[in-house]
Amino acid sequence: MPAVSYQLKHQCQQSGARYGLVTTPRGSFETPVFMPVGTRATVKTMTPEELKQIGAEIILGNTYHLWMRPGPAVISELGGLHKFMHWDRPILTDSGGFQIFSLAKPKDIEEEGVHFRSHIDGSRHFLTPEKAVAIQEALGSDIMMQLDECTPWPADEAYVRHSLERTTRWLDRAVKAWHTHDRQALFGIVQGGTYEHLRKQSAREITSYDLPGYGIGGLSVGEPAELMYAMIEAVTPLLPTDRPRYLMGVGSPDYLVEGSCRGIDMFDCVFPTRLGRNGTALTWSGRVVIRNSVHLRSDLPLDADCDCYVCRHYSRAYLHHLIRTGEILGLRLLSWHNLAFLMDLMRHIRQAIREDRLLSFRDDFFKSYQA
Amino acid sequence: MPAVSYQLKHQCQQSGARYGLVTTPRGSFETPVFMPVGTRATVKTMTPEELKQIGAEIILGNTYHLWMRPGPAVISELGGLHKFMHWDRPILTDSGGFQIFSLAKPKDIEEEGVHFRSHIDGSRHFLTPEKAVAIQEALGSDIMMQLDECTPWPADEAYVRHSLERTTRWLDRAVKAWHTHDRQALFGIVQGGTYEHLRKQSAREITSYDLPGYGIGGLSVGEPAELMYAMIEAVTPLLPTDRPRYLMGVGSPDYLVEGSCRGIDMFDCVFPTRLGRNGTALTWSGRVVIRNSVHLRSDLPLDADCDCYVCRHYSRAYLHHLIRTGEILGLRLLSWHNLAFLMDLMRHIRQAIREDRLLSFRDDFFKSYQA
Repeated sequence: MPAVSYQLKHQCQQSGARYGLVTTPRGSFETPVFMPVGTRATVKTMTPEELKQIGAEIILGNTYHLWMRPGPAVISELGGLHKFMHWDRPILTDSGGFQIFSLAKPKDIEEEGVHFRSHIDGSRHFLTPEKAVAIQEALGSDIMMQLDECTPWPADEAYVRHSLERTTRWLDRAVKAWHTHDRQALFGIVQGGTYEHLRKQSAREITSYDLPGYGIGGLSVGEPAELMYAMIEAVTPLLPTDRPRYLMGVGSPDYLVEGSCRGIDMFDCVFPTRLGRNGTALTWSGRVVIRNSVHLRSDLPLDADCDCYVCRHYSRAYLHHLIRTGEILGLRLLSWHNLAFLMDLMRHIRQAIREDRLLSFRDDFFKSYQA
Repeated sequence: MPAVSYQLKHQCQQSGARYGLVTTPRGSFETPVFMPVGTRATVKTMTPEELKQIGAEIILGNTYHLWMRPGPAVISELGGLHKFMHWDRPILTDSGGFQIFSLAKPKDIEEEGVHFRSHIDGSRHFLTPEKAVAIQEALGSDIMMQLDECTPWPADEAYVRHSLERTTRWLDRAVKAWHTHDRQALFGIVQGGTYEHLRKQSAREITSYDLPGYGIGGLSVGEPAELMYAMIEAVTPLLPTDRPRYLMGVGSPDYLVEGSCRGIDMFDCVFPTRLGRNGTALTWSGRVVIRNSVHLRSDLPLDADCDCYVCRHYSRAYLHHLIRTGEILGLRLLSWHNLAFLMDLMRHIRQAIREDRLLSFRDDFFKSYQA
């Protein structure tokens, strides 16, 4: 019996989008789902109770950051990541690869693994597929991701092929290093850049491993949105229908809608919290830059159609004041609203799938939402 | 019928400390009370719901900061400070004087008022006793403070006398400018530096105005604690027993205990939240510098005798991790615990007064608490 399973509950007759249920040892969650990112054992500014209040069912943790501080040994000794951060629902951890490629330069990628220097103190480290699994086993997440290379965009075809094939070999090693089948799932990751045939090659190679779920990585890294959508469309027909598909690092409202339409089940992104800390709110009409002076005297809520804690109790004028004066409560309230908004958006998406009207929902959504 | 009244419920037979009840248009609160400081319309890092959860009954707002941003006209237009910040319990506002003297240098004090430059943009402003009342009336706080001069320490006797006498004249003007007797109280402020006879002179002058309460200002500004206690003891016998006494800007645990023993009813200080944001916790054993490496692997709570949200759910190791990585949740949780600790301390103090054993409580407290 695998630790994590997926049940396809309903497929939208209009779009083909999937409404489903992922079951883990720490509870189940409905999909499509957006997973708030808890980089360093905290979803920035939020308590676990607040995350539950807005309906978060699963969050993400970053292996790279937790490896650097406080270290997997400390977290393991204290009872694992869930207990450490006071979150008893499912956690997905990434492999650490993405942060190494984006944060911890300079790096050196070889067949064995990735050499890098910590972005904190410059100390040297080496991450291998086996070590990525070992760290995630020590953290005790519910879903682990294999070490992969997130190929940059643009990249030439030869490099992308070489890279995706290495990602497959890394998956082979990750699977062999994985010892916690009874309580942790391991997902493989489809790469292949923006080359349709390479995406398909990768999908075939990765799905030759019978895993509880599959990620689609290396998208939303600078390429045009149409190219991202084309890659998703190239890959999903090759993925088994009884496993969840996770589009990694993607989480803007328009991408959540478009990704769901294309059969994606899981999403994550730091975007809503980062945007919030920068003083911008997500609403059904698009982005509201609350820092702007136009909000100085506005007694409107961030979004008249949102009934989150923030929209029920605070005016734009107050939030403007907090952001302008650099108050931490402002960072909290905008992060809170943005996450609540995405949770609400996902509820709407799931409902539209169940009612076979996701394409109609998408049309309505883009009539009012300005990306 | 004055807007704010005080009822002395019980006087400790051991210490003479006062257990009482202050009633305002927005509810009543038991004294001695600690008032968390909501400088810029927010008690830093905390929501109003969290403040209520830890038992805060009244908070403080800073007239200077709110005057500068977003301005009393904006707050008034939006329905007043309570509505603006989503806090429906009592608020006490200071006069703005203290921040001008401490933040907004250079300044020029004359009989008419205080010239100063904004610490934000250097713009020129002029605060008078009348204007301090007008701003506080616009903010709509429940208790207003007169404009006074917080004399620095040390200061020579001639200057302190001149200053306290001007503070009395400013009270006279503040009383004449006060138009909201039905819904807002005005407190006068006793000054006089560390000169016992000047403190008494000030107390006599200030209490010649029949006001709903009295502040004791200009203490805990660098003078030895013994001198502060001596000044409190010089003043309190001259204050009417049926009005609350507010020791301004004082809020460390040892001062709260000592001040209560000497008949003080109200306290405020940014100390617990500022200390928390700097990574230090207040406990029944004294300060715990959670930033220190000794806590890296500690699964203990901040305080084993505290049952606040933070102590119930988080280890020192986790808090250490959050503070070391600069996570906002760390600032939140330490501020939360520190405020909860002070609220708990005040509950213990009130209970000890009611049971005529505050001096015994003080002795026990200082046996374990290291300041």
